[in-house]
Amino acid sequence: MRKIKLTVEYDGTHFFGFQIQKRARTVQSELESALKKLFQEKIKVIGAGRTDSGVHAEGQVAHFSTTNDVLPIFKIRLGLNRYLPEDLAVIAAEEVPPSFHAQFSAKRKRYEYRVLNSKARRPIERFRSFYFPYPLDLAKMKRTARLLSGKHDFRAFEASGGRRKHAVRMIRRLQVKKTGNIICFTVEADGFLYKMVRSIVGTLLEVGQNRLKLADFKRMITFKNRRLVGPTAPPQGLTLKQVIYR
Amino acid sequence: MRKIKLTVEYDGTHFFGFQIQKRARTVQSELESALKKLFQEKIKVIGAGRTDSGVHAEGQVAHFSTTNDVLPIFKIRLGLNRYLPEDLAVIAAEEVPPSFHAQFSAKRKRYEYRVLNSKARRPIERFRSFYFPYPLDLAKMKRTARLLSGKHDFRAFEASGGRRKHAVRMIRRLQVKKTGNIICFTVEADGFLYKMVRSIVGTLLEVGQNRLKLADFKRMITFKNRRLVGPTAPPQGLTLKQVIYR
Repeated sequence: MRKIKLTVEYDGTHFFGFQIQKRARTVQSELESALKKLFQEKIKVIGAGRTDSGVHAEGQVAHFSTTNDVLPIFKIRLGLNRYLPEDLAVIAAEEVPPSFHAQFSAKRKRYEYRVLNSKARRPIERFRSFYFPYPLDLAKMKRTARLLSGKHDFRAFEASGGRRKHAVRMIRRLQVKKTGNIICFTVEADGFLYKMVRSIVGTLLEVGQNRLKLADFKRMITFKNRRLVGPTAPPQGLTLKQVIYR
Repeated sequence: MRKIKLTVEYDGTHFFGFQIQKRARTVQSELESALKKLFQEKIKVIGAGRTDSGVHAEGQVAHFSTTNDVLPIFKIRLGLNRYLPEDLAVIAAEEVPPSFHAQFSAKRKRYEYRVLNSKARRPIERFRSFYFPYPLDLAKMKRTARLLSGKHDFRAFEASGGRRKHAVRMIRRLQVKKTGNIICFTVEADGFLYKMVRSIVGTLLEVGQNRLKLADFKRMITFKNRRLVGPTAPPQGLTLKQVIYR
């Protein structure tokens, strides 16, 4: 038995997310179908985590096991990319020890969220960013972002449908940076609640419009009040950039 | 009569280029149809230049004239963007003097060509770059690019179908820069021959693979020998970034 770690990139626009579902095109099902064609056996893929419908990945990680111990590792990458559709590709394949687990061995993840903040929409950005034409107080957003860094109970930022008991997470990095008319939010944490990044971005956009006071923001964290949180930002701005392992 | 200058952005993937054609979806025809809806009159659009099928633009320029002198300029941008499809938008609209002409007043144009140089294809890049997985000698490409800067007869780099009598053009800037696995070619010139940028990129990729000697390259310029030029790079890597006016 060999265990293989795959790093995959996908344009999430036409996927119903990562996880396998009946009668829906998902990343996991496309990966499993390509693996079946390459290895001529049914292979189950375990991902580092789900991504929602419309969310992209440049560094999603998945693992699988196979009884085939002859196919060289670079041919696994090449072979899979031949069978995968054009909006999904394996960018790296490597053999890992049996103890490796795409989800449980992951130490941290890094996401990026892109907001297009300009008067006019930009066609080239339409599948990669959230078009938000209203004026924003960037300095205030940056100051507020700093309050979220570190260890907090983030349950206020969890969308309904989340299933976690414990909502304490550690945000290692939360950067807000504007380049041209794109505001890029980088969030790196040891774990994420359901739709947490999109919820944080939605809330910071409220802050940037002066619709939410700093005091309210602090209450959100202290009293875990979901009702104060801004709307969840839409999926097309979000990209899973990297899964970090020990 | 008012003359209006439009700066437009488009994702060229689903356009048959800029110029109007019968039974084909083009940028010019979409612009004219949106203008007709907004102004309730038939309006002809003049572009700074054509772009081919599949080529993108972040700063294409066009002008038109209208008898309407009441509609505020910002409402022209907003109104057009409401009628235009999602892969085409007006990013700026301004009133210009009657002497302005999108094509003839243009002083220079700047194009960018993106090559994805990595072992694996990248889904997110598929409509914005040319996937070229072979090893390249970047230093040699940069040295060769320097030879092309300045004033030369570029007829060797003109694709068949070009209609110019004089092929002398002035390249003000030709930069080759690698960021991650993307090689970005920036070409700024006072004029371009038909498919000149894609022809230059195709040739520099031959140079980078050591398939073309520097002496041959010099002969190409001196003797204007089209047969030595590399294949024309495909359209999806090309973007018209800016049209510069006096």
